[in-house]
Amino acid sequence: MKQSTYLIPTLRDIPSGADIVSHQLMLRAGLIRQSAAGVYSFLPLGWRVLRKVEQIVREEMDRSGAQEMLMPSIQPAELWKESGRWEAYGEELMRVTDRHNREFALGPTHEEVITSIVRDDVRSYKELPMTLYQIQTKFRDERRPRFGVLRGREFLMKDAYSFDKDFEGLDESYEKMYTAYNSIFSRLGLNFRAVIADSGAMGGKDTHEFMVLSNVGEDTIAYSDASDFAANIEIAPVNASYDKPDEAAGELREVETPEQRTIEEVSRFLDVKPEKCIKSILFMADNEPVLLLVRGDHEANEIKLKHELNAETVEMATEQQTKEILGSVPGFIGPAGVPAELNVYADHAVEYIVNGVCGANKEKFHLLNVNPERDFSVTAFKDLRSIQEGDPSPDGRGVIHFKEGIEVGHVFKLGTKYSEALGAEYLNDQGKAKPIVMGSYGIGVSRTVAAVIEENYDENGIVWPACVSPFDVHLIAINVKQEEQRSLAEKIYGTLQARGTEVLYDDRPERAGVKFKDADLIGIPLRVQVGKKASEGFVELKHRKTGEVEEVHVDELSDVLEKCQQ
Amino acid sequence: MKQSTYLIPTLRDIPSGADIVSHQLMLRAGLIRQSAAGVYSFLPLGWRVLRKVEQIVREEMDRSGAQEMLMPSIQPAELWKESGRWEAYGEELMRVTDRHNREFALGPTHEEVITSIVRDDVRSYKELPMTLYQIQTKFRDERRPRFGVLRGREFLMKDAYSFDKDFEGLDESYEKMYTAYNSIFSRLGLNFRAVIADSGAMGGKDTHEFMVLSNVGEDTIAYSDASDFAANIEIAPVNASYDKPDEAAGELREVETPEQRTIEEVSRFLDVKPEKCIKSILFMADNEPVLLLVRGDHEANEIKLKHELNAETVEMATEQQTKEILGSVPGFIGPAGVPAELNVYADHAVEYIVNGVCGANKEKFHLLNVNPERDFSVTAFKDLRSIQEGDPSPDGRGVIHFKEGIEVGHVFKLGTKYSEALGAEYLNDQGKAKPIVMGSYGIGVSRTVAAVIEENYDENGIVWPACVSPFDVHLIAINVKQEEQRSLAEKIYGTLQARGTEVLYDDRPERAGVKFKDADLIGIPLRVQVGKKASEGFVELKHRKTGEVEEVHVDELSDVLEKCQQ
Repeated sequence: MKQSTYLIPTLRDIPSGADIVSHQLMLRAGLIRQSAAGVYSFLPLGWRVLRKVEQIVREEMDRSGAQEMLMPSIQPAELWKESGRWEAYGEELMRVTDRHNREFALGPTHEEVITSIVRDDVRSYKELPMTLYQIQTKFRDERRPRFGVLRGREFLMKDAYSFDKDFEGLDESYEKMYTAYNSIFSRLGLNFRAVIADSGAMGGKDTHEFMVLSNVGEDTIAYSDASDFAANIEIAPVNASYDKPDEAAGELREVETPEQRTIEEVSRFLDVKPEKCIKSILFMADNEPVLLLVRGDHEANEIKLKHELNAETVEMATEQQTKEILGSVPGFIGPAGVPAELNVYADHAVEYIVNGVCGANKEKFHLLNVNPERDFSVTAFKDLRSIQEGDPSPDGRGVIHFKEGIEVGHVFKLGTKYSEALGAEYLNDQGKAKPIVMGSYGIGVSRTVAAVIEENYDENGIVWPACVSPFDVHLIAINVKQEEQRSLAEKIYGTLQARGTEVLYDDRPERAGVKFKDADLIGIPLRVQVGKKASEGFVELKHRKTGEVEEVHVDELSDVLEKCQQ
Repeated sequence: MKQSTYLIPTLRDIPSGADIVSHQLMLRAGLIRQSAAGVYSFLPLGWRVLRKVEQIVREEMDRSGAQEMLMPSIQPAELWKESGRWEAYGEELMRVTDRHNREFALGPTHEEVITSIVRDDVRSYKELPMTLYQIQTKFRDERRPRFGVLRGREFLMKDAYSFDKDFEGLDESYEKMYTAYNSIFSRLGLNFRAVIADSGAMGGKDTHEFMVLSNVGEDTIAYSDASDFAANIEIAPVNASYDKPDEAAGELREVETPEQRTIEEVSRFLDVKPEKCIKSILFMADNEPVLLLVRGDHEANEIKLKHELNAETVEMATEQQTKEILGSVPGFIGPAGVPAELNVYADHAVEYIVNGVCGANKEKFHLLNVNPERDFSVTAFKDLRSIQEGDPSPDGRGVIHFKEGIEVGHVFKLGTKYSEALGAEYLNDQGKAKPIVMGSYGIGVSRTVAAVIEENYDENGIVWPACVSPFDVHLIAINVKQEEQRSLAEKIYGTLQARGTEVLYDDRPERAGVKFKDADLIGIPLRVQVGKKASEGFVELKHRKTGEVEEVHVDELSDVLEKCQQ
């Protein structure tokens, strides 16, 4: 492709409003342009990358045995009412009314449509299992579109849906998708983890988010430095191995702590380490009070408490509630001397505290030398704190670190939620109708392009991995007005194209500096520079990633490039 | 692909509401399913065909030098207000409002978006010419969606836009697209014509519709049986070569024709041929009366009259207006003795009438032996009738026939309509700002799939041309319970896949009759049937189109298939 008339509007300056590197670089390298908040065009260069990501996704989906199809964006409201999501999806669902005043959703996802097709067209257990997928535009009216194509309102997504006879079948289909996703993100060279995620209201046990570990993102991931363990910090389990200090139990006593409420204040005031303190928080779980204890240097984890109690809602008690139940206020509460009927849940670490400190349930007072069992009783010791950096990995291998995560994929066991709501049944081998068991699997294709950039750039621009680079080779005629350079470059252009290499040929009458700056920004891995030595048949081969330059004779260029591309 | 778990829900019966063959077959062969009026899913088989059509379109667009990109469906209302189409597009434009009450169009086409991108990112004449295209989903809220994917509300389209410095450049860009479109529809094996179309309000001179000549469609096309001439009958020029009968002029006289108004009635009553009659119609052209004359066996063409007069509107005069101007009523009017100031336009054929018949401008009377010039004067003789079957082709080669046409493509010179409305300018080589000159080029990709079927079917189902067939080969194990058949079929399946052949393998435990019926319906060009002679290593190769069957030894199968596919 000749660059002179190819639409690559590069920008020297960082566009305003672009807060993260991938967004800045996608705008600066002329990959995308914004039409509205969260709505982008992919210009030719960006489109080529998008297509390459799409093709890798497609190949791995096909290899897994999934069948590609294409569903419409316009989805009848009736289907969404059948599933209950017309209301539940809220403002994120874009809605449109046709000329006959019929309502439609602009598909943010396609569970309803695919379930209705399978309901009408799949009858027998003989036709199952089946996994269907599409690569298609999705619409979500995000409250806060941001980070360019990382969180857009219109974006390209691969969504797949599996249909099985039973939950064992679902396990297999899920495993296939899980494997395919690993292959996809591995081929893209991403530093990713399959992260155990919270299945939330869906109730399914298995759900994994595929997270690219990054410096930006909307989730924090705890991962091991020595294994493939990774989990969203919201639900990461904690490896409960603590040592009990070899220390005799002291005498329980009350001390005045007039202004000291937080662990930090108390520990400084009393000169005890935070890990000796017991953090006590009163929650209302489905309107029943429960006291949660964690070690002073740990964070209480509400989601774990909620799961432990199997509660619908868990909220911190108000000051008023705290007073009524414990006779004191937050900052001065503790587990000693609480009403017998109050459930007290403690994180495992609390069991190992000797001579601890906690609130006295009396304003402006704390207790010293508090010991579990002796001074207070606990309903149960459980994993109720959040994981921390430096913790041992829950799988016993390595140490936990934190990174931001970009969610590029999600695999989810739906079970029979949609098949029951929409009546998608099959006849089993005894001729009995059974609900089809479903799974749902997404990959954010446009978002993945941004994630690749977040991992592959330097101060001069993008550094594409070869597999998704918009072109294989960037050919630059340094001075097109110089006849020998121009004609050699044209010749190389022809030769490379003939051997199937995707070449971007900078034939612009621009200064060398402009060309090099653009080339760095665009980030094609291999660059062939035709300059002063053109008359002798020599060109420069520059590697974008390393900056390494080698002089190559034009007769050897094809061979050298072939070696580089292996 | 194994058919047992591949989603091909074939139907034996013709689905209700499907009026044309392609719609019926797309439903019956399991290519598509409807979600709402004019809104379809492409099931796996249909999707494969859609992709193949898409790929042919892409290859030819790329070959023409056009650059692929991807624009969003959600388009800000502001852009459409700038072009004036927010109002002008009417109810066909689907509109959506986001959570912040901002209005958007769901793109039915992308002139506004692409012009705004080029406005912002193209500056210099050096960057032109440039043609950008995308293959993307379009939304049009058709008043009457019908014929399946032939007239849908959500459909896949290839839309391209050319940007040039001047109108000469536009001519070249247009020509490139015209050539690419010819290549595309030729590769698809369609019987199509590039039809001269009415540029309507756009004012551009050159616009062609690419029409597949068919038995269904929404336009009627006049085409030559001996050349590539084709035009919409609404505007097809007529070859004006008539002979004057060798007959002496008779005496003009009035006859009573009490109930005879139409040409048919008058010609029967007076026993003269219709081609001797002069059909006279009074029009109001921009509120000025004009009398149009055509031969009795011809049809008057209002669009030609409108173009001839350069009028904004042309409407038939009311009975009241006719009485005021001619003193008579429709059915009895004629050109003789009309007021001198009345313009009389006549089709060329009228000039060659000798001793004709026309209305007497007196109720219940006609005139006999009317002769042009002698008995009435004519402002101008022009091409003012519609073309007819049997007419000589206007290019002098062959005879005109009519066919219905399916519009699969449209090329259009936009000029500066959008660039001026949106302010898309470039700086010319003197540094002067000039509006960019644009063209617009569309192909209905999903519609083309239907058009291909309209040309390729028989009483048993679809007969795919190889280039867009969902699979190359349909492999059928006639009786999978028979071990020798099954294992030979499996072996062939593996071998064909290994050599890159796309195989649909019918491994279903169904009766042979069901399998053959489905195979005919699905219409893959080559079928390999593994049956009773499996034990001897023989299979049947059946050609879908001809029904021809040959017995082939499995060792020679690859070679034979290769020959067939050439």
